[in-house]
Amino acid sequence: MITLEDVKKARERIFGRILRTPLLRVPALDPVLGCQVYLKPENLQLTGSFKIRGAMNAVLSLTEEEKEKGIVACSSGNHARGVACAARQCGVDAVIVMPVNCNPAKLAGVKSYGARVELVGTLGSEREARAEELMKEEGRVQIHPYGDDKVRAGQGTMALEILEDEPSMDTLVVPIGGGGLITGVATAAKGTKPQIRVIGMEPAGAPRYSLSRKEGKPVTLEKVDTIADGTRTDHAEPENFKAIERLVDELVTVEDEWIKKAMVTLAASAKIVAEPSSVMGIGAALAGTLPVKPEEKVCFVLSGGNNDLSQLAEVIAYDLSGSGKAGGSLH
Amino acid sequence: MITLEDVKKARERIFGRILRTPLLRVPALDPVLGCQVYLKPENLQLTGSFKIRGAMNAVLSLTEEEKEKGIVACSSGNHARGVACAARQCGVDAVIVMPVNCNPAKLAGVKSYGARVELVGTLGSEREARAEELMKEEGRVQIHPYGDDKVRAGQGTMALEILEDEPSMDTLVVPIGGGGLITGVATAAKGTKPQIRVIGMEPAGAPRYSLSRKEGKPVTLEKVDTIADGTRTDHAEPENFKAIERLVDELVTVEDEWIKKAMVTLAASAKIVAEPSSVMGIGAALAGTLPVKPEEKVCFVLSGGNNDLSQLAEVIAYDLSGSGKAGGSLH
Repeated sequence: MITLEDVKKARERIFGRILRTPLLRVPALDPVLGCQVYLKPENLQLTGSFKIRGAMNAVLSLTEEEKEKGIVACSSGNHARGVACAARQCGVDAVIVMPVNCNPAKLAGVKSYGARVELVGTLGSEREARAEELMKEEGRVQIHPYGDDKVRAGQGTMALEILEDEPSMDTLVVPIGGGGLITGVATAAKGTKPQIRVIGMEPAGAPRYSLSRKEGKPVTLEKVDTIADGTRTDHAEPENFKAIERLVDELVTVEDEWIKKAMVTLAASAKIVAEPSSVMGIGAALAGTLPVKPEEKVCFVLSGGNNDLSQLAEVIAYDLSGSGKAGGSLH
Repeated sequence: MITLEDVKKARERIFGRILRTPLLRVPALDPVLGCQVYLKPENLQLTGSFKIRGAMNAVLSLTEEEKEKGIVACSSGNHARGVACAARQCGVDAVIVMPVNCNPAKLAGVKSYGARVELVGTLGSEREARAEELMKEEGRVQIHPYGDDKVRAGQGTMALEILEDEPSMDTLVVPIGGGGLITGVATAAKGTKPQIRVIGMEPAGAPRYSLSRKEGKPVTLEKVDTIADGTRTDHAEPENFKAIERLVDELVTVEDEWIKKAMVTLAASAKIVAEPSSVMGIGAALAGTLPVKPEEKVCFVLSGGNNDLSQLAEVIAYDLSGSGKAGGSLH
């Protein structure tokens, strides 16, 4: 289990190697979301998402011998990009194992950092098996996207920045995919300010931790179905589940319909392009299901912005056509 | 002619009443634009554009008697919104004279701040005449969008913020509409750091100041044709022309085609939604016609983000279809 100290050390380690993103205050959204709205725009972070924080901390924590042998990571998305970027910055050889049907834009993004990409199968288990081989055969260290303490601590660094910029923040709203981000953020935030509230967001089509909380143990879902592609993990990771049970005040789920609305609202009122996984909390606030009050200072963590732009254009067109429930009110 | 002192006083006056926007560093754009890229995102400012800075300074500078009698402004766009917001914050009655064919979204934006809107004709001269009437009949003070020293000084405050955040900035790239923004910014920037370069951007379809510089006197264009709706002024304002001749190192024009590319590039690589008038400098850099170097720290002022979202969706679709010259390289 990581501690506030681990997050503080991570921050020193990665300082100057990642961007310190600003905290944005967006009064235009206050009446729409029902609280004092702040955004932590990690879509503006290097590599377009928060993942570089954890990846950089993990790579910098390797021993010299480990750095020599290189690393391996399995991911089809933002973690792949974060690891590739961190490896290049630190001069470490990286192999990224991606699915054969991965998004060509994401593939190009990873390759642009000079990482070697292996395309393996379509299932997570197939990629895991190949990573195991590379660990055995080449002595590589695996950087896991959400099951690694250095990664968790790295992701948590953003909470220190948020509370430095606005010590009177009341609540953090954090997206949950594998659970590494919220574990890091909640550890750092509650360690710094015990009375702060942390709300975790899951898509209604992939409610791993919400269901696990109900059942009192980590569960695996039979299927996962959501537009929020950064959160398509099918199971609750046991360590993250423990941290979430201890530190996260509420878990809220949100339907895809409201995630789409949230993308349009952010583009219209906050002038920000964020990917679906990023805007789950904004979606819940629009739907009226996020437990917040008008005077409450609420920071929505925007985890990334590696959108497919054609998806954004489609979502805008869909909303303007009036098909969306909240269509008229956004402009 | 305004001075650095005027801008510093404006800053004290409006402090806490507007947002201090962050300075964003966007390394992802460095190779694309050919310099070290910084953005001053005034699209994230209250009212969605920089115009609130000048409007707030002008309204706060009124005498008590003037405040009692109220104000009037002519504008179909961001200045209307800025004045309406400043007037409401300061408890001053405002009439905004807008064209009968104004954008309904912009009309609603202005009304949302409680201003009285009068819809008058379609020509600037008709709106001016109505404003004159209101000045005579009701004793109102007119807040001119770019021909008012308090407005110019207010707009200049952003330059103080930029140089505070990055004292080693080499160059500022500033959009020109009526010329009030660049007059304020250049005055403050050169007053603070004489060796800084200021580049002014105009649309190729409305090159008022570029042409005036060539002819050695302020000119009026016969027609104006550009997607950059915030810059559709047909003439060079004499005071602003003098300031531009004295303080602005280069004037560059850019075609609409590159403005569209710039909008898509910003959305894709900087995750920012900005209106066409805002991105002229980015467009010129993409076109290779902005005189900048790889090691140069260049701040692009994004003047506003009050886009019509359907326009953004159209521009994205146009770019993805491959019709745009730089289509493939942006993703």
